[in-house]
Amino acid sequence: MLRVALAQINPTVGGLDGNRRKIAGTIQKARESRSDIVVFPELALTGYPPEDLLLRDQFVRDNLKALAQLAPQTKGITAVVGFVDRDKNRKLYNAAAVIADGKLKGIYRKEKLPNYGVFDEKRYFTPGENNPVFSFGKIIFGVNICEDIWADDGPYHCQAKAGAQILINLSSSPYHAGKIKQREELLKKRAKAMGVFVCYVNLIGGQDELVFDGGSLILSPKGKKIASAGQFQEGLVFADLKITPQRKSKSLKNKKVICVSKANPAVKGKAVELPAIRALGAVEEIYEALVLGTRDYIKKNGFQKAVIGLSGGIDSALVTAIAVDAIGRENVVGVSMPSPYSSAETKADAKRMAHNLSIRFIEISIEHIFKSYLETLEKEFVGQTCDIAEENLQARIRGNLLMALSNKFGWLVLTTGNKSEIATGYCTLYGDMAGGFAVIKDVPKTTVYKLAEFYNARRKKEIIAHSIILRAPTAELKEGQKDQDTLPPYDILDKILKDYVELDKSPAQLNKKTGNPKLIKDVIRMVDRNEYKRRQSPPGVKITPRAFGKDRRLPITNCYREY
Amino acid sequence: MLRVALAQINPTVGGLDGNRRKIAGTIQKARESRSDIVVFPELALTGYPPEDLLLRDQFVRDNLKALAQLAPQTKGITAVVGFVDRDKNRKLYNAAAVIADGKLKGIYRKEKLPNYGVFDEKRYFTPGENNPVFSFGKIIFGVNICEDIWADDGPYHCQAKAGAQILINLSSSPYHAGKIKQREELLKKRAKAMGVFVCYVNLIGGQDELVFDGGSLILSPKGKKIASAGQFQEGLVFADLKITPQRKSKSLKNKKVICVSKANPAVKGKAVELPAIRALGAVEEIYEALVLGTRDYIKKNGFQKAVIGLSGGIDSALVTAIAVDAIGRENVVGVSMPSPYSSAETKADAKRMAHNLSIRFIEISIEHIFKSYLETLEKEFVGQTCDIAEENLQARIRGNLLMALSNKFGWLVLTTGNKSEIATGYCTLYGDMAGGFAVIKDVPKTTVYKLAEFYNARRKKEIIAHSIILRAPTAELKEGQKDQDTLPPYDILDKILKDYVELDKSPAQLNKKTGNPKLIKDVIRMVDRNEYKRRQSPPGVKITPRAFGKDRRLPITNCYREY
Repeated sequence: MLRVALAQINPTVGGLDGNRRKIAGTIQKARESRSDIVVFPELALTGYPPEDLLLRDQFVRDNLKALAQLAPQTKGITAVVGFVDRDKNRKLYNAAAVIADGKLKGIYRKEKLPNYGVFDEKRYFTPGENNPVFSFGKIIFGVNICEDIWADDGPYHCQAKAGAQILINLSSSPYHAGKIKQREELLKKRAKAMGVFVCYVNLIGGQDELVFDGGSLILSPKGKKIASAGQFQEGLVFADLKITPQRKSKSLKNKKVICVSKANPAVKGKAVELPAIRALGAVEEIYEALVLGTRDYIKKNGFQKAVIGLSGGIDSALVTAIAVDAIGRENVVGVSMPSPYSSAETKADAKRMAHNLSIRFIEISIEHIFKSYLETLEKEFVGQTCDIAEENLQARIRGNLLMALSNKFGWLVLTTGNKSEIATGYCTLYGDMAGGFAVIKDVPKTTVYKLAEFYNARRKKEIIAHSIILRAPTAELKEGQKDQDTLPPYDILDKILKDYVELDKSPAQLNKKTGNPKLIKDVIRMVDRNEYKRRQSPPGVKITPRAFGKDRRLPITNCYREY
Repeated sequence: MLRVALAQINPTVGGLDGNRRKIAGTIQKARESRSDIVVFPELALTGYPPEDLLLRDQFVRDNLKALAQLAPQTKGITAVVGFVDRDKNRKLYNAAAVIADGKLKGIYRKEKLPNYGVFDEKRYFTPGENNPVFSFGKIIFGVNICEDIWADDGPYHCQAKAGAQILINLSSSPYHAGKIKQREELLKKRAKAMGVFVCYVNLIGGQDELVFDGGSLILSPKGKKIASAGQFQEGLVFADLKITPQRKSKSLKNKKVICVSKANPAVKGKAVELPAIRALGAVEEIYEALVLGTRDYIKKNGFQKAVIGLSGGIDSALVTAIAVDAIGRENVVGVSMPSPYSSAETKADAKRMAHNLSIRFIEISIEHIFKSYLETLEKEFVGQTCDIAEENLQARIRGNLLMALSNKFGWLVLTTGNKSEIATGYCTLYGDMAGGFAVIKDVPKTTVYKLAEFYNARRKKEIIAHSIILRAPTAELKEGQKDQDTLPPYDILDKILKDYVELDKSPAQLNKKTGNPKLIKDVIRMVDRNEYKRRQSPPGVKITPRAFGKDRRLPITNCYREY
C-alpha cells in the first residue's frame, strides 16, 4: 500500500524563496500524514511559465540552489518537485527531481515540449532522453511532465513497459472553460490503456494572461477517480494505492531503474479520508477562474486595492463583483464618471451597484473636462463634424481620471472590456482600455450575461440589478447610442467570433454557416483591423481555448484579406 | 558561366497578390537581363514573419495558389521562391520552390528552424528532411534557407559533399546594428570552407517590430564579394559565376539531384555591370533602419500622414526628422503642447524644428485642460501633495490631444520615447507612450544624440538646433525638472541597460564592473518594475540585438529579485 499526496499549490513566477518555503511546508504536512510520496506540479519551484527569466544564468543557478535546500526536508518521505535542470553543456530541461531521505535520487527530464498556443517551451528547453523509472522496493513508478501524457507517443508507454504500476504526472496546465473534462477523459484513457494508477498534479493560480485551475486527481488502473483536489484552490490530497509489489524484471534498453527506497511501502493504519469535492458548474467554473486570476494579478504584483470605472452597464458591474470576491469589498473603489450623454438610469445603476456591494463609491463628472478639450481643440476642429474623435475623448478622459486616482493612491485600475468588444475594436485605446488588468477581456458578451445571472443566483439576491441586465448595451458616448448601431446582435456576433478567432474558420465556411457574406465580411474586417489596439491592451484571464495575447499572434501589419 | 540574379525585394506580410505580382515582375526583369536563375528571399510570397496567419488553412492554400500562378512566368529562366509548403499530413514547411520553364521542378524544406529571440518557427513548421540538390547541366547547386547556413551542422555540408558548386541561401534576417558584418563574415567562412560560390538574398522592409536590411551578396569560393545589393533598398543585382561544369558523381544517401535544365549554361556575351555599393556608416545604418521601418509601418498599414508631439527636446526632434525622411515633409504634422512648466526656450525650439523641416506646425496649450482636471479632482485630491499623478496627467492630456487629431484626421501618432526611458519606465503610459508606432523605442538615449549629430552632418546644416542637442534632458512636467533628478547620467545608464537587458548580466557581474551596487540595484529595479508599461507599448523598430517586445519575453508578474 502506497500513500500518495498531491500538492496542488499556488507558486509565484520567479519567487524562488517563497516557492521553496511553500514546498518545504507542504512536504512537512505530507510527512505528518504518513505519506510515502508527495508530488508537486511542473516547475513548482520557479512558477510557470518563467519565460525569459530562463535565459538568465543566475536565475537557473538560484533555482538549483533552492532545489538543493529542499533536499534536507525530505527525511522519511519522497518528494517529486518540478524545477529547471541544466546539463554540463548548459542546456536546460523542464525537469522533475525525485528527492528522498535528504538526497536527490534521480531526475526526469520532460520529453514532449509544447510550442503552440500559449506555450514556448522549445524556446528554452531541450527534450529529455533516456529517462529512468523509479522504484519503492518492488513497486516501480514512472514520472512524466504535462505534455508527456497528452502526446500519443509519450514516454508513459515505455514507463509502463518497464513495469511501472504508477504514473506520476506533474503539470502546469492552463485553464480554459471545460478543459477539466478533456483532461479527466484523457487521463482515464491513459490509466486504462496502460493498466496503471495515474497521479496527476496541476498547480493553481493566476499568472498574467493565464490561470491554472488545479483539478489534481488520482485514478485507478480501471480509470476510477480515487482522489481529487478540486479547482482553483490550494490543496493537499491523499490516497492509499493498493498495489501488490510485482516488479517485472523486463529490462528495457536505456531504461534505468532508480531505487528511491529499498523497502516496500507498508500499510499506514487508518486509511486517509477523501474530501468530497463538488464539481463546478460550467458558468461557475469561469467565474472562479476570473476571481482567482484577478486576485493573483493584484496580490502577486503587490497591490492592495483596485479601482473600476462604473458605467451602470453590465460589464463594469460584473468586473466589480469579481473584484470584490477577489480582494474584498473594502479594497474596491467604484468610480462613476457621467457625461452629458449618461442617462439618469445608468447613473443610478452605477451608484446602486456600489451600494449593493458595499464598496466605496466616487462620482466625478467629466463634463467640465470634456468642455475644456472641445474649447482647446475648437480651432483645429473648426468645420469638422462631431464623430468618433469626440466619443473617444470622453472615454480617454475617464481613463485619465482612473489613472490619476491610481497614481495618487496606488490603486490598480481594472478595465471592463469584454472579448466581443476587444475583438471588434468596439473600445477606446487609452480610454476604457486603460488599466493594469483586463478582467473579462476573454469573456464574450453573451457569457458576461450568463455570469451576471449566475452571480445573482449564487447570492440569491439581485445584486446586479435587472435594469442593468435588461438594458440594451450602450457606450453612452453620443445621444441615443446603442452597441447594436455598430455591431451585430451579440448572440450572432459571438458565434462568428468563436469560429473566426478561436477556430480559424475561413469566410467561405462562415458564409455557408450564416448565409450572410456581408455580415461576415464586416465582422472579419473589424477583427483584422483592430489588432493594433489589442497589442496595447493590458493582460487578462484566458478562459477560452484561444485568447487574445500570446495565444494568438497575428501581425499588426497584415495585408491578408480573405474576404 | 552562370548568370545569377538576387532579388532583394520588399514584400508585405499577408499581401499574397501584391507579393506575387512583385515577384513576377522581377522574374521578368531578370529574364530580360539574360539571367539563368533569379533568387528571392525566404517566404517572399507570404512576407516574413506571417505568424499565426500560418494556422489558417485558407492562408496556406492561397499561398500555394499564388505559387502555382507564378510557374508560367518562368519561361526560359529558373526562379527560386520562398513559400509555405504543406505535406499530405498537413504539416507545414518553410520552403523554397525551384521553378523553371513553367514548371515546379523541386522543393527545398528548411532544416534548421530558429525558435529564439524574435523567432517562433517551431510554432509552425516541421524541419525538412531528405532534401534534394539541383543541377543545371553538369553544375550542381544547393538551396538552403536562412538559419540553415548559420548552424554549424547545417545542410550546406552535405550539399557541398553532393557536388554543389553553388550554395543559394534565401533569408529573412532581421536587422540589428552591425549585424551585416557578422553575416558577411559568416558567409565568407562558409564559402571558403566549402569551396563554393555563396549567393545570399535577404529581403528588405519593415514589419511591425522588425526591419530587414537586405545586404544580399554573392561570394566567390575564395570568399571574395562579387556582387552586393546594399542595405535598406530594393534591388536586383547580377553576377556571372565562372564555373567549370564538373559534376561530381558522388552518390550520397538520400541526396536526390533534381535537374532544372539539361543544358550547361552558356556565356551571355557582355558581362553584367556591378553597381558600386557604398557601405553605410555605423550610425547612418541605424538611421536608415529607422526611416525604412517607420515608412513601411505607416504605408503598409494604409496611413498617409503622421503626427508627432514636438516638445522642443531631442527625442521628438529626431523622430520628426525620421518621419520627414520616411513619408515626406508634407505628410508630417508637428504639435507643440506647452504647459505652464514649458520654458520659452523649448517652445521656441519646437517651433524652430518644425520650421527647419518645413512641416505643418500646430500649437495647442494644455493649460486650460490641465486646470479643468485639477478642478475636477480637487475634492478627491484634497490634502494630498502634488506628485507623479499631476505629472502624468499632463503627459496624458497631450496623448489625448494627439489621439483626438489622429481620430479626426486619420493621422498616425508617432511616439518619441527612447529605449533608456522605456527600460526604466521614465515615460507615461497613455501619455507620451500613446500612439501607433514608437520610432526610437529601441534606441538608447546616447545613440539618439549620435543620430541627431549624424543627421545635421549629413544635411550639412543645423536642422536639429544645437540648443536642443545641448540642453539637459527634461520632461518639463514640474518646475525645474531634469531627467537626471531621477535617472543616472545616460552614458552610465545606457551601459548598464545594455548589460542587463541585452546581455542578461547578473547584478553581481554589474557590481563588479561599476563598483556601485546601489546604482545597479536602482536601475534593475526600475527595469523589472516597468514590464507592465512596456507590455502596453506600441511596436517600434528593433535596432539592437535584443529589443523590448517579442524579442524579450518577461513575465509582468515576476517575484524574482536578483539584488
